[in-house]
Amino acid sequence: MYIIGIDGGGTETVGILTTETGRCLAQVQSGPSNYHVVGEAKTQAVLKNVVGELCETAGIPLTSSIHFCLGMAGLGRVEDKKVIGRICDELGISENRILTHDAHIALVGGTEKQYGVIVISGTGAIVYGINADNKEARASGWGYLLGDEGSGYDIAIKGLRAIARAADGRGRPTELTNRILNALELNEPSALIRWVHAASRDAIAQLAKVVFDAARTRDVPAEQIVDEAAAELVCAASSVIHQLAFDEMFDIVLSGGNLMHQPMFADKLRQALARIAPSASVHLPKHDPAYGAVLLAQAKL
Amino acid sequence: MYIIGIDGGGTETVGILTTETGRCLAQVQSGPSNYHVVGEAKTQAVLKNVVGELCETAGIPLTSSIHFCLGMAGLGRVEDKKVIGRICDELGISENRILTHDAHIALVGGTEKQYGVIVISGTGAIVYGINADNKEARASGWGYLLGDEGSGYDIAIKGLRAIARAADGRGRPTELTNRILNALELNEPSALIRWVHAASRDAIAQLAKVVFDAARTRDVPAEQIVDEAAAELVCAASSVIHQLAFDEMFDIVLSGGNLMHQPMFADKLRQALARIAPSASVHLPKHDPAYGAVLLAQAKL
Repeated sequence: MYIIGIDGGGTETVGILTTETGRCLAQVQSGPSNYHVVGEAKTQAVLKNVVGELCETAGIPLTSSIHFCLGMAGLGRVEDKKVIGRICDELGISENRILTHDAHIALVGGTEKQYGVIVISGTGAIVYGINADNKEARASGWGYLLGDEGSGYDIAIKGLRAIARAADGRGRPTELTNRILNALELNEPSALIRWVHAASRDAIAQLAKVVFDAARTRDVPAEQIVDEAAAELVCAASSVIHQLAFDEMFDIVLSGGNLMHQPMFADKLRQALARIAPSASVHLPKHDPAYGAVLLAQAKL
Repeated sequence: MYIIGIDGGGTETVGILTTETGRCLAQVQSGPSNYHVVGEAKTQAVLKNVVGELCETAGIPLTSSIHFCLGMAGLGRVEDKKVIGRICDELGISENRILTHDAHIALVGGTEKQYGVIVISGTGAIVYGINADNKEARASGWGYLLGDEGSGYDIAIKGLRAIARAADGRGRPTELTNRILNALELNEPSALIRWVHAASRDAIAQLAKVVFDAARTRDVPAEQIVDEAAAELVCAASSVIHQLAFDEMFDIVLSGGNLMHQPMFADKLRQALARIAPSASVHLPKHDPAYGAVLLAQAKL
């Protein structure tokens, strides 16, 4: 028996094929397959390609007994499961399959366990948890308009707003002005208006790095933004932990670019989480989400 | 001699033709003419139509000695003045003309004076002021991404976020949930995600009314949003007043739908402004912006 785990993301798709015991036989990277982003046809093409390539690389036929787990944004919802289920049927994957959402496979990969909590701060942000009774809870992650508090996008937009406030005399001067204008090769704060309306959300979220840099130099507006983002993620984590009422020790994984590559930010969270959940073990992800999908298949199928 | 004042907005255009002394001979309403919104060709067509209709209604030939003042968003900038200047040339309005931005004519119309401060909270927000030395200052009004703090859009988005927070257990329950879901005929908070991404900024800003309604019933999250919006506008006003260093009594006009139709909100501002600018007279607009354009032409030409 073999296992295929797939992380079907909005920017890339990662697939892993392993033995029953989780030994990796093949790994494949491909383009985005989140069907909300690229549409059904593209999703189907990418998944077909990834599965085909995995089997070819591992030298096993597609007709082998394969257990399959796919994680994709939105794939917790019934309607999305129908759409992707149909696509899997057409790919010949109709049995032994798990279709679940991206935070779930990230949690299982990150913790190496079937339950726990994951705090993700990338372009977007979400806190997701599942307990031993399979009860799920989530907080934040409503998208950039309704509240992705603590996300890279949120941090970056607050950085840009701090520049506007300083330029207006509404807020104190900030290092962010020079740093962000330099990073974008712009001459003056008002040029940010045109820039921000033309930029993608990812491009905006990239500026979070500059806010972290400025916070490390003790720039007060930048520090406040980082503190606020950490407090928002802790608030979301607190709500999820409260809802799930863990009765034993559990893991909290800190994931997403802002937590995995900004130790200062991750440390703020660690300290705050130690206060609200003293029995939790807080750490960075042990494995990536695609391997989480393998672990999930291994445990559930 | 005659005067034409035009308020060239992004949703409608209002034109007034008066005598030298400001007696109104004709008034015309037409579609949007802000060229950032509708493009140059449409702007030219609307302005031509408005001027033509004003002259026809008043029974005066276009060749008469007409003083002209147009206010339009962005028309403080040199590039915008060139574009609109060319359009005016082609309409035969090449002398005795003032091209200025929308907040300037709103201020003159609102105060009936050539200097003072205007606080606008509509879909967007801005505070603008000009002093007796013709020095100008502004704060806020960077657009919905970089900070339109205190605007209807800002108030509405915070109302929607309060619903998400309450649904997640991140924030306290709020009246806003039922009120906004009812107003939009939606069944549950998660349906707001799809709604908000499809809605126009104006449609979102309309929800500010619901936040004001909830605040009047003492709903704490709604009250906090309204208080924060008032504090933001006061902060912006404070910066403008400080920059302009008025040495005599001046007017502060409260304008835009949220201030003109929400007495509770306007009262909060009045009280706070009385503290930071005790010598100012705070009031609602005396005239509309198109008539402000007439008053400006009358004084300056």
